[in-house]
Amino acid sequence: MRIDILTLFPEIVLAPLGESMMKRAQEAGLVEIKAHNLRDWASGKHRKTDDYLCGGGQGMLLKPEPIFAAIEELRGASTKVVLLTPQGRVFKQKLACELSQEEHLIFLCGHYEGVDQRVVDELVDLELSIGDYVLTNGALAAAVVTDAIVRLLPGALGDARSAVDESFSDPQRLEAPAYTKPVEFRGMRVPEVFLSGHHAKIEVWKREQALRRTRENRPDLLEGS
Amino acid sequence: MRIDILTLFPEIVLAPLGESMMKRAQEAGLVEIKAHNLRDWASGKHRKTDDYLCGGGQGMLLKPEPIFAAIEELRGASTKVVLLTPQGRVFKQKLACELSQEEHLIFLCGHYEGVDQRVVDELVDLELSIGDYVLTNGALAAAVVTDAIVRLLPGALGDARSAVDESFSDPQRLEAPAYTKPVEFRGMRVPEVFLSGHHAKIEVWKREQALRRTRENRPDLLEGS
Repeated sequence: MRIDILTLFPEIVLAPLGESMMKRAQEAGLVEIKAHNLRDWASGKHRKTDDYLCGGGQGMLLKPEPIFAAIEELRGASTKVVLLTPQGRVFKQKLACELSQEEHLIFLCGHYEGVDQRVVDELVDLELSIGDYVLTNGALAAAVVTDAIVRLLPGALGDARSAVDESFSDPQRLEAPAYTKPVEFRGMRVPEVFLSGHHAKIEVWKREQALRRTRENRPDLLEGS
Repeated sequence: MRIDILTLFPEIVLAPLGESMMKRAQEAGLVEIKAHNLRDWASGKHRKTDDYLCGGGQGMLLKPEPIFAAIEELRGASTKVVLLTPQGRVFKQKLACELSQEEHLIFLCGHYEGVDQRVVDELVDLELSIGDYVLTNGALAAAVVTDAIVRLLPGALGDARSAVDESFSDPQRLEAPAYTKPVEFRGMRVPEVFLSGHHAKIEVWKREQALRRTRENRPDLLEGS
């Protein structure tokens, strides 16, 4: 898989891509990730990438010319172009799974008030939002989506770890609380059931607690079921 | 405002914090942001921060001792401790507004299978999820939440820009498509209404288009109204 990220702030995405799982996945050849500065495709002395809104309104918009030039240079025969924008479909785990099957993704990061609509109409296959909140720019959103996708590539999580046994793989329920050593810390003990070694009882406890937690933090997940 | 981010991967959050709006907000003294390595509070030769799950199961869990030590050192009289975890409440713009009123936030970033539940029970004021997808670790989530909050601090967006006139400030509707120069690019023209200079007509067009886009990308927003 190949991922190209097109942004005015490549440094924002380079750091997360160079650490931990994302670093190992690239070293193992599972994915090739590059962050590109949109300004490299801008022309003129000032390499201008933004301009005022037509019809008035606050803020600036990314101009079409540098984006068309960049995407036309970067895209291949089986490329999917994804725009990160608060106007997009909401990114969820199911979509992460679908996108992890693609050969080549280009993530275009919105900035300022967004991008000229002609870019969306002509170049973009999918508009994606990572949640109902506003970020300064789409570079962080691209890093989030990249992380969620890359960890699903076979081999990315390594050894015994698996990407399946997790919240949102079963979208109806959060995970149960979990404990590690020490068994007693400042008078707080791990629940006795964990010390019983009785796996069936542990499973019952975990299911009950997962349900309780879901009811408290995400009642919306239960309403859908 | 002060924000402390506690993570095994400070580099992941430092890059986004050092660019663009987040850099300027810190230089202007609106917010002081520090990323701390949780390992600095771990003891022993190996500075171990994780351990196996009680009761079995795949993966590792963050141990309670280093987290208790770190948060007890970092917190003050009016600190809110926020854990980034897929098990949390879903982060939305309204919550970003609320958190932007706090004096001091500590973001604790989950990693591996999460954190020992005693940390949640004793130290954490709010469990927060940035969306229904799984990330390798919570550092990216902390950077996302920090960005969404800091840009709401008065003065952070500077000059004429405002944080109000945006998607999710009005949560029922996405923004309309927008255009910038050139008026004609490869035969694609900015819609004529924008060139009319007739502001009332432009507003009508924008409202219609915003509704159409919401219907296409986010029908769930309309169902609620």
